[in-house]
Amino acid sequence: MTELENALEEALRQAREAARTLALATGSAKDKALLLLRDGLLQNKERILAANAFDCEQAKASGRTSAFVDRLKLDSARLEAMARGVEQVAMLPDPVGEVIAGWRRPNGLEIIQVRVPLGVVAVIYESRPNVTVDAACLGMKAGNAVVLRGGSDAIRTNRELASIISSSLAGAGLPSCGVTFIDQTSREVIQVLKRRSDLVDLIIPRGGSELKQALAGSAVPVLPHFDGICHTYVDRSADLKMAEEICVNAKCSRPSVCNAMENLLVHRDIARPFLRALDLRLEAFGVEVRGCERTCEILPRAVPATDEDWRTEYLDLVLAVKVVDSLDEALSFINRHSSGLADAIVTNDLAAAERFSREIDSAAVFINASTRFTDGFEFGFGAETGISTHRLHARGPMGLRELTTYKYVVRGSGQVRL
Amino acid sequence: MTELENALEEALRQAREAARTLALATGSAKDKALLLLRDGLLQNKERILAANAFDCEQAKASGRTSAFVDRLKLDSARLEAMARGVEQVAMLPDPVGEVIAGWRRPNGLEIIQVRVPLGVVAVIYESRPNVTVDAACLGMKAGNAVVLRGGSDAIRTNRELASIISSSLAGAGLPSCGVTFIDQTSREVIQVLKRRSDLVDLIIPRGGSELKQALAGSAVPVLPHFDGICHTYVDRSADLKMAEEICVNAKCSRPSVCNAMENLLVHRDIARPFLRALDLRLEAFGVEVRGCERTCEILPRAVPATDEDWRTEYLDLVLAVKVVDSLDEALSFINRHSSGLADAIVTNDLAAAERFSREIDSAAVFINASTRFTDGFEFGFGAETGISTHRLHARGPMGLRELTTYKYVVRGSGQVRL
Repeated sequence: MTELENALEEALRQAREAARTLALATGSAKDKALLLLRDGLLQNKERILAANAFDCEQAKASGRTSAFVDRLKLDSARLEAMARGVEQVAMLPDPVGEVIAGWRRPNGLEIIQVRVPLGVVAVIYESRPNVTVDAACLGMKAGNAVVLRGGSDAIRTNRELASIISSSLAGAGLPSCGVTFIDQTSREVIQVLKRRSDLVDLIIPRGGSELKQALAGSAVPVLPHFDGICHTYVDRSADLKMAEEICVNAKCSRPSVCNAMENLLVHRDIARPFLRALDLRLEAFGVEVRGCERTCEILPRAVPATDEDWRTEYLDLVLAVKVVDSLDEALSFINRHSSGLADAIVTNDLAAAERFSREIDSAAVFINASTRFTDGFEFGFGAETGISTHRLHARGPMGLRELTTYKYVVRGSGQVRL
Repeated sequence: MTELENALEEALRQAREAARTLALATGSAKDKALLLLRDGLLQNKERILAANAFDCEQAKASGRTSAFVDRLKLDSARLEAMARGVEQVAMLPDPVGEVIAGWRRPNGLEIIQVRVPLGVVAVIYESRPNVTVDAACLGMKAGNAVVLRGGSDAIRTNRELASIISSSLAGAGLPSCGVTFIDQTSREVIQVLKRRSDLVDLIIPRGGSELKQALAGSAVPVLPHFDGICHTYVDRSADLKMAEEICVNAKCSRPSVCNAMENLLVHRDIARPFLRALDLRLEAFGVEVRGCERTCEILPRAVPATDEDWRTEYLDLVLAVKVVDSLDEALSFINRHSSGLADAIVTNDLAAAERFSREIDSAAVFINASTRFTDGFEFGFGAETGISTHRLHARGPMGLRELTTYKYVVRGSGQVRL
């Protein structure tokens, strides 16, 4: 084993040990640690911001884009928002110990299904330092030990945050290595993590295709949060004004996120008036339109879409638009091109709404609402740990519950199996 | 691509297509297919038994053990039991479409979480031909397309069963490739399956360590059903007669299965009278005892246990026995040695029962009952698709629900995100 492997193994063993303690910790102890963390963030504001300023300078000097530096940057307002977020997690009910279901068998056995922590959860992410605090809070509140591996650009900021997190745990009588920040940014860390299914129960990657590739063949289960190619289909029966508002919101309110609309489908019967009106709004937002043949005929400013356009997550002010002949064509197009995160229909036709909600195989299906609502907070979870594009364990927005598993407790009075 | 890869890809594409249809199939259509299958099994009894007799002869000729041939063998009674099993699955409620939860948001959005099929589920198994029928029925009833890859020894039997399954689907108006039997027993099949995460949503392996290794690094999620090292701890407050019955049941009622007891822990205060009485029963069943020092002192016929014994799944009439000083020692021993499937305590002490149920981190924790109840039928699921030793997606006995996922359907009236 390399020195790095040895050091990591030791850290993971301590995390495993801490996970046993955290699994049994009371809600009050966990919430106390969270409130200490909130206070610690505010009390150490100067130190954190100084470390972050250094990180940001280094990032600029090494030629990072201004968008990148903006994601990395903390200021007083962002730090206070972070502290409020921590407080909000403390206010959420403890997911651990919830009895999900319970029943009595004919032989008298009483079975309950109880929510318990997953164990050791590793989060691998890039430059945003707020992920350090969010992932620590949510993972710990769900009774897990959390192993954090952030990007090298935020390393000084993350060190400060990690040290405050550890003292908050200790201050609440919880093991300080319940949240372990891996102070190593080598790619080898990911290769070690993904092999240690004995010490890590889940890896949550928050990053791009490079991270996806680095995790291929992982022995530890991975809950991916990857592409979002979201569609909106405007049916012929749609309230066109409503459809316009929904489309503008889905495309323009925050184009860089995974729940923004990338492909718009429009029924041919209402394509001309709808697209003409919508395009005035899109143009004002600076949205580039790439269209099918019929779209380009209706909107002279549109450029012809290629096959590649329908499969692209632009994350930008670009929209691919297609005129379709029927609901059937829309359904089949979406099931072929959607990344399975979120798709919407705007319609006033009950049968169309029902078919869309049944036949579209995506984590979230919207009827007369914007795909932008695909979000843990908007769903009412009070927190978000990512949006799963996976079909197993958790699908769609993930809150605290999705960081847990369950066990069965069976109470008897001497029953034996015949 | 090799010829095999091409053929498999084509089969998996058809399964993916069939999955879309099956996901939307009504409960009645699926149940009609199941009842046709029940009838088909009974009507084609001669053909199936003839094919099976051939398989059994070949297996004997190639030197398979008699236990192996027994697992492979079908007779009239076993075939009729298989047909009754199919009928029972038809009688279960359809898991697809169940509304798991639903709520309204302050902005008026109505969110429901609806149970939907996983998609394409591949089951890889060995010689028991009843797995062919069980996996097909359960997977299909949960709305999935099922891809079956059985062992080479049962190939003729499986061909007959698969052809009856396909005609039953067709007879109910469902796609006949909704259940695809892969008539290829090469190991390469597993290597292809595990790479095609685009065409397969889940692999359920039912087999030993060789299969476990073959699936290492799978790009498709794997829901493992592997070792069962189950413990029973007899506390000092236990009703010793109850403890004796539970231990005899857990060890002797079917030693070859994963939920049988392998390690017995006994509190020192009651070790002597309890072990002396229990051993009379164990000896009568022919159980070999491997004990710690104190056990060997109490039971002269016991042989000293090695460290390896505490980590061994005997699946046989062998029991490792350890005398412990306290509940704490038992808890820590079990959490270190259990495979996390099922562990039991026999006690009349409420605090001990509560600590055991909270602190033992296994899929099923039993208080005053035999670990042998760790089973989908015994849990009341009406069916079983294996017992997961995994922490994600499903844990413990798996029924129909565990072969599904969910999606969110969000109904609005024009809401946009601020």
